[in-house]
Amino acid sequence: MLGTAVNVQAMVFGNMGDDCATGVAFTRDPSTGENKFFGEFLKNAQGEDVVAGIRTPQEITTESSVKWAKSVGISEKKRKTEYPSLEELMPKVYDKLYKIQKKLENHYKDMQDLEFTIQSGKLFILQTRTGKRTAKAAVKIAVDMVHEDLIDKKTAIKRIYPSQLDQLLHPSFKPDDKKRAKNEDKFLAKGLPASPGAAVGKVVFNAEDAVAAKEKNEPTILVRKETSPEDISGMNAARGILTQLGGMTSHAAVVARGMGKCCVAGCGEITISGEKTFIANGITIKKGDFISLDGSTGEVFKGKISTEPPTFPEDFNMLMSWCDDFARLGVHANADNPKDAQIAKDFGVTGIGLCRTEHMFFKEDRIEYVRGMILADNSKEREYPLSELKKVQTKDFKGIFEVMQGYAVTIRLLDPPLHEFLPHQDDIQEIKKLSKKFKKSVHDVKNKINKLKEFNPMLGHRGCRLGITFPDIYKMQVEAIIEAACYLKKKDIDVKPEIMIPLISDVSEFDNIEEMTRKIADKIIKENDVDLKYKVGTMIEIPRACLVADEIAKKAEFFSFGTNDLTQMGFGFSRDDSGTFLKKYVEMGLLESDPFQSLDQKGIGQLIKIAVEKGRSVNKNLTIGICGEHGGDPSSIEFCHKQGLNYVSCSPFRVPIARLSAALAAIKDIASTQEDSTPVE
Amino acid sequence: MLGTAVNVQAMVFGNMGDDCATGVAFTRDPSTGENKFFGEFLKNAQGEDVVAGIRTPQEITTESSVKWAKSVGISEKKRKTEYPSLEELMPKVYDKLYKIQKKLENHYKDMQDLEFTIQSGKLFILQTRTGKRTAKAAVKIAVDMVHEDLIDKKTAIKRIYPSQLDQLLHPSFKPDDKKRAKNEDKFLAKGLPASPGAAVGKVVFNAEDAVAAKEKNEPTILVRKETSPEDISGMNAARGILTQLGGMTSHAAVVARGMGKCCVAGCGEITISGEKTFIANGITIKKGDFISLDGSTGEVFKGKISTEPPTFPEDFNMLMSWCDDFARLGVHANADNPKDAQIAKDFGVTGIGLCRTEHMFFKEDRIEYVRGMILADNSKEREYPLSELKKVQTKDFKGIFEVMQGYAVTIRLLDPPLHEFLPHQDDIQEIKKLSKKFKKSVHDVKNKINKLKEFNPMLGHRGCRLGITFPDIYKMQVEAIIEAACYLKKKDIDVKPEIMIPLISDVSEFDNIEEMTRKIADKIIKENDVDLKYKVGTMIEIPRACLVADEIAKKAEFFSFGTNDLTQMGFGFSRDDSGTFLKKYVEMGLLESDPFQSLDQKGIGQLIKIAVEKGRSVNKNLTIGICGEHGGDPSSIEFCHKQGLNYVSCSPFRVPIARLSAALAAIKDIASTQEDSTPVE
Repeated sequence: MLGTAVNVQAMVFGNMGDDCATGVAFTRDPSTGENKFFGEFLKNAQGEDVVAGIRTPQEITTESSVKWAKSVGISEKKRKTEYPSLEELMPKVYDKLYKIQKKLENHYKDMQDLEFTIQSGKLFILQTRTGKRTAKAAVKIAVDMVHEDLIDKKTAIKRIYPSQLDQLLHPSFKPDDKKRAKNEDKFLAKGLPASPGAAVGKVVFNAEDAVAAKEKNEPTILVRKETSPEDISGMNAARGILTQLGGMTSHAAVVARGMGKCCVAGCGEITISGEKTFIANGITIKKGDFISLDGSTGEVFKGKISTEPPTFPEDFNMLMSWCDDFARLGVHANADNPKDAQIAKDFGVTGIGLCRTEHMFFKEDRIEYVRGMILADNSKEREYPLSELKKVQTKDFKGIFEVMQGYAVTIRLLDPPLHEFLPHQDDIQEIKKLSKKFKKSVHDVKNKINKLKEFNPMLGHRGCRLGITFPDIYKMQVEAIIEAACYLKKKDIDVKPEIMIPLISDVSEFDNIEEMTRKIADKIIKENDVDLKYKVGTMIEIPRACLVADEIAKKAEFFSFGTNDLTQMGFGFSRDDSGTFLKKYVEMGLLESDPFQSLDQKGIGQLIKIAVEKGRSVNKNLTIGICGEHGGDPSSIEFCHKQGLNYVSCSPFRVPIARLSAALAAIKDIASTQEDSTPVE
Repeated sequence: MLGTAVNVQAMVFGNMGDDCATGVAFTRDPSTGENKFFGEFLKNAQGEDVVAGIRTPQEITTESSVKWAKSVGISEKKRKTEYPSLEELMPKVYDKLYKIQKKLENHYKDMQDLEFTIQSGKLFILQTRTGKRTAKAAVKIAVDMVHEDLIDKKTAIKRIYPSQLDQLLHPSFKPDDKKRAKNEDKFLAKGLPASPGAAVGKVVFNAEDAVAAKEKNEPTILVRKETSPEDISGMNAARGILTQLGGMTSHAAVVARGMGKCCVAGCGEITISGEKTFIANGITIKKGDFISLDGSTGEVFKGKISTEPPTFPEDFNMLMSWCDDFARLGVHANADNPKDAQIAKDFGVTGIGLCRTEHMFFKEDRIEYVRGMILADNSKEREYPLSELKKVQTKDFKGIFEVMQGYAVTIRLLDPPLHEFLPHQDDIQEIKKLSKKFKKSVHDVKNKINKLKEFNPMLGHRGCRLGITFPDIYKMQVEAIIEAACYLKKKDIDVKPEIMIPLISDVSEFDNIEEMTRKIADKIIKENDVDLKYKVGTMIEIPRACLVADEIAKKAEFFSFGTNDLTQMGFGFSRDDSGTFLKKYVEMGLLESDPFQSLDQKGIGQLIKIAVEKGRSVNKNLTIGICGEHGGDPSSIEFCHKQGLNYVSCSPFRVPIARLSAALAAIKDIASTQEDSTPVE
């Protein structure tokens, strides 16, 4: 029979006199990661006194004590008498403590957080545990410990949490100042943490105001019900973006992440009235008022909160290169222009997984021609605007190819529905301009805008459906890609263009466009007499495409999962509308997490599995990647690793997270294989 | 070595004198199916003279000759001398021909179409083949032949083409008059044959005008860019509906088929200008002009074409009952009110597979309360409109249950997004009315309308997502269903309510609403002290639901495939927008047929297969049906049979087609099983 055991333990007292003390210490600096013993103590006190924060604790080491005194303006003399370090006060005890902490760290092979009490000059260790640390410290400690032969590289990598890395890549609010804002009731609302970072600026309600303010060097936050492609210039000009509607993969969120810009999306707690004010938490915020956005938490505050810049630890690149040694998945980036491609390359990608040609269409110098192309009633009329567009597209592609030389650049042909490029039907000024430029009556322009409106544009006339019904557009794009590639190839620059056909639901669509693509491409290559290799593949983003992937893989050279659309269609959730219920679903526990943030492995994952199996069953060398937003999400990356994908592609600013996650997935995989095989050995 | 063979055959001449003739005969009347020998001949002529139609042929039998003469006003005397029958002219040859045609029909066991020539009094049979016939004749001949012991019932059923049956169920244009219209260049355009039948009326461009005309007993054709729920009263009032946009399962098409009303949808060849005119084929049609629609072919004509009413052959019900003996699939109907349920019952259904509660919401006496319910800011405010709605819903359900006593009635809880029920944001009159009635400011009403707008409403806040976020609405509906059922049960009427939860993507959604439903239902049943059985099941209409069907089937008592939505999401095709490219896809041969008309067995079919397998793997008694538009499509029905579904549910007017198709599928199945087993025996 089992009874209850009682542990009888002697109590130690740190408050029995001046030869007593209590404290907390870290074997390394938990804030910077420096390999320096670090901690605080209180003389003649118990543990709760340290926690309560009534008395100011003193530093354990003399080095940090001196540093502290300087920072608060206390003279060395005063410090020595009033706030001596433990090292000065009880040198023997300090020596013992120093040795013990070294021993503990060597034993646990990780930075320790320990509590101690000194009773009448005798040291007692109350507790030791692995210490919490900042992202910066985590990276430094891990790399240092490898160099100190304490741990191996695999362990070092496992010590970093992918979610921590965001801290390193974006500015953040100073914790104290954020606390102050909270205490002063400046909190306004909480939305979705759509794109990390911290931003402070004056509220503007439209893109024009953001652009105008930028010219005057005024920081702004663009506040919109939702954003559309027409807002891109304003999003670019603003410091941060706040939207009332939309989810984690709404237009605002996706574009902001691509720009590495702070964004809080789907913030239903704010109500925008016209373009003058918004109300949140009972407070009215007017145009021009300052607000502060925390894109990492989704919080919105009134007024300014001080920020601190991202800190990039030296050891970061070292750690990343170790990651690449373990990872089986490659990491590519989604980039639409040479600048973004360069950022991605600096972050260490080995290819561009998704270049969205339409993002180039919105620039001021080309949107007009895009509109002309759409307004054209026949191929003849389409010629002029298409030839103008081809010039700029060719230039863009040259730029990207040049940056990414030696690496694959996957370019997606035009994807969104055409109406996205047209002005609003009430924007009479813009309509008149188009009418004049392209010799169409105002009535005709308006009619076209109306005709292109759709009930459910997400499921409408877009992607390859455009390529099939208006082949001129795709032809122009293929020409631009291949001509740019040939131009560089002649200069001995190694280019690897991959042409990606979006929104395939049936093999017949793929075959139709693939044939057209190869005909044009081969002709241009022959004319240029260069040895250019290119690939033609497809996005797999429609549920049906997964189910008939074996047919598609017969001719497609690569698959790239567009998991945003696959999630939208697989779940029947519009990413722009699901904010109204998805948040509640997660709160109520109906869904573990927002499936637009982290891939739904149980359901959508099955579609991916089916597609991989069917695709590889007919084409075992099929290259398979993922270019949806999930390409930057750690658990989704682990899933991609398990499914045997070749690479993930994500926003440039997510690349380090993806590289780490890919390594972690591989290490976990190795570990489980070894475990599995243990009994056999 | 094989050489070329030459067949040397003597020529017969029907033009060698007055003892010669040539003609065509049918063993039964191909137009009515009457078991009467029937045909025409020309004296002293060759076959081509009959075909050329230069001379008026004479009747073969005296009976039809007399009938013909009467119809064209020729005296019996004149007939006998100038147009005698073959029976009168050459009685011996006639006797021989009569015997031969009987022999041929007995041999081939089907109505024969034969060609003959008489040369110098000698009869030669040139050809015999199975004769073409009208739908009416097909049914009569098949049933008669069973009664004459010529064929068995299985063969009789196989002689009817499901597509033919539409002719019997709807009015059609008189073929001659349609030909005239074509010759006179009255053809305007061709759209999708969205709902069969023929309709003639004056063009109106909005629902109000259709309703106003109806009151004056004027026939109208409602011409709209597309229809929305607000047009329902006008669709009801019009004789036919013509839309410029939308596919086979657009709002206009689905509603029209449900009403059994002629509709041509997605007619991109017409251009509507304002609400005054439309242009097609270069012709301008003004409001008030007559047009004629052929809903079975999609053709639109200017002016009036004469119609003929549907003819319902006597033997029809007999044939249908034989079908039911063979069919393994049950046939249910989609019906939203007692009247439609009665039509469906008269067509022989054994249940209501889909009762769309929201269709009841649009009626004049309730739409106001629906709007009140939506405008409410909290449960308290929602109480009054919900209690009013409950009264009318309870009444509706009582009516349907009473009509369908003894049979299951599957009621789907509210499905469409709420904004569909609100007035247009520019309809200031209606907004003011609502503002007054429900004590909300005009500003608030407008705000609500704006807030509920969605980018992709098909993938938005609808179905069970409403039930979870606004449980009050579903609670009211469950109460109305169960209270209606208890009321009738107490009167000893056998009611079988089945509550269907729409738009499930995860089992957690189902569990949430099922629990709420059972709690309410069981409480009401206990209070009423009746022995009422009810079922709770779900629509399977989201791709993900198919993939996790095993989890859902643990608690769901039935599945009903919503193949419209499953096709929309599986293909990524919006049914309302796909008109712009789907027609072209079919023309180009990229798709065999419009997947909204005929189920895509290769792709969407895989999702159905997966769901059936997974569902039955945990619940082998799971009842599985289909209630999308495909439930009335012959090849889709065959697919459902093969997958082992329990029933199909379709529009009331498609029921006979579904009963026949179900029988044909079963017969085909038996035949292939027998073939398969032959070698083993």
